[in-house]
Amino acid sequence: MASHIVSSYEDELKFIVRRISEMGGQAERMLEQAVTALVRGDTALAQSVIADDVILDAAQREVDEKAIMTIGKRQPMAIDLREIVGAIRISSDLERIGDLAKNIAKRVLAVHNHAQPNQLVRGIEHLSELAVDQLKDVLDAYGARDHERAITVRDNDEEIDAVYTSIFRELLTYMMEDPRNITSCTHLLFSAKNIERIGDHATNIAETIFYIKTGQEMEADRPKKDRSATVTQKSLEEAAEGTAG
Amino acid sequence: MASHIVSSYEDELKFIVRRISEMGGQAERMLEQAVTALVRGDTALAQSVIADDVILDAAQREVDEKAIMTIGKRQPMAIDLREIVGAIRISSDLERIGDLAKNIAKRVLAVHNHAQPNQLVRGIEHLSELAVDQLKDVLDAYGARDHERAITVRDNDEEIDAVYTSIFRELLTYMMEDPRNITSCTHLLFSAKNIERIGDHATNIAETIFYIKTGQEMEADRPKKDRSATVTQKSLEEAAEGTAG
Repeated sequence: MASHIVSSYEDELKFIVRRISEMGGQAERMLEQAVTALVRGDTALAQSVIADDVILDAAQREVDEKAIMTIGKRQPMAIDLREIVGAIRISSDLERIGDLAKNIAKRVLAVHNHAQPNQLVRGIEHLSELAVDQLKDVLDAYGARDHERAITVRDNDEEIDAVYTSIFRELLTYMMEDPRNITSCTHLLFSAKNIERIGDHATNIAETIFYIKTGQEMEADRPKKDRSATVTQKSLEEAAEGTAG
Repeated sequence: MASHIVSSYEDELKFIVRRISEMGGQAERMLEQAVTALVRGDTALAQSVIADDVILDAAQREVDEKAIMTIGKRQPMAIDLREIVGAIRISSDLERIGDLAKNIAKRVLAVHNHAQPNQLVRGIEHLSELAVDQLKDVLDAYGARDHERAITVRDNDEEIDAVYTSIFRELLTYMMEDPRNITSCTHLLFSAKNIERIGDHATNIAETIFYIKTGQEMEADRPKKDRSATVTQKSLEEAAEGTAG
């Protein structure tokens, strides 16, 4: 790239990267607050998470516009182009994380009057902590353009999948014990699924960092430990023997 | 835009638009087949839907690359730029629809041995038909760059949300009647949610068509009829009076 336009391209990229880092902080906060609201039945906090989602939507739109303008104006090549394309992808993942956090917050209204067993609440808090950690790690990896660290983040998603599957089984067992738990457990099930999806978006971001740094896509094959889609009645009944009502 | 490069930009756009139309056809097919597999317990068909997802992933990547290249090379402005940006957004929505269809297909293995009541199966088929219609309509609107029709598609999403909410309530009621239904109904619940999400992606595509044609974003406020997030135990018990076991 000719040096007389470097500083300008750099300025534009810096702006975009700063916006993404703000979006990342916002997405983290929304997830933490949504789960806190869920656990405590705090409907006011839930409402504030729902309201905050527009900030991420607007930021994504802004990153998109800036990125497209930069491509048209500067015609960046190779890593410079990948930086801009990567920014578009990452801001889209962060926006989706905001949507998922908002979705959890919306369920708070339905479950806040129903006491949940401690074990379940702890499980969901744990899942959420894992997802927040993944998000922090992947945003750090982005800040440092550290693709080795991005690979680690991608591999750690397994743990989220495994914890989610175990929560899925616990929730189903709890529903079977007492049908009065079904509605609130269903909302918790969707909330847990949303957190698991947030983990997937952190993985997407990790893959984008790898692409920015290397120009290659990460290998698609990785072990998936979300086995919830294959949980059957039989497997649950065996596991819950003697407790299902 | 200078006339000497017009034909080349047009060729590139034509290529991208053709790819998107192929992706749309593929996404429709995957949804239809996933729901057929779910309803009939056809695990072979489910496996083929799961395998087909890579086609959409590859197509999206190709559209992205082509689009970015075109922006860099041709520096399109105004509607020409919006066409390319719109293509990137639409291919991303179609790829997500493929993921959601794959997710339904994955659940077939868990539920195929468990007979579902006809009413539930009919409900999910109906929901899926609505989503397929939305997808067909929005792809036609894209082909014709018809933003009036896109507004209609966006407004019709209400019906999907309303049908989804009613299936959500039915599934929960059915789970309460007999805890042995809980596992398979949970998988159906997630499947129904995936179909409802596919409707949201059709809406996104409608909004993108509006943006391409007008350069404006559609108004964000529209009535949402997915009330499932606020369904409570009490509201269900009142509705299911006398049937909950």
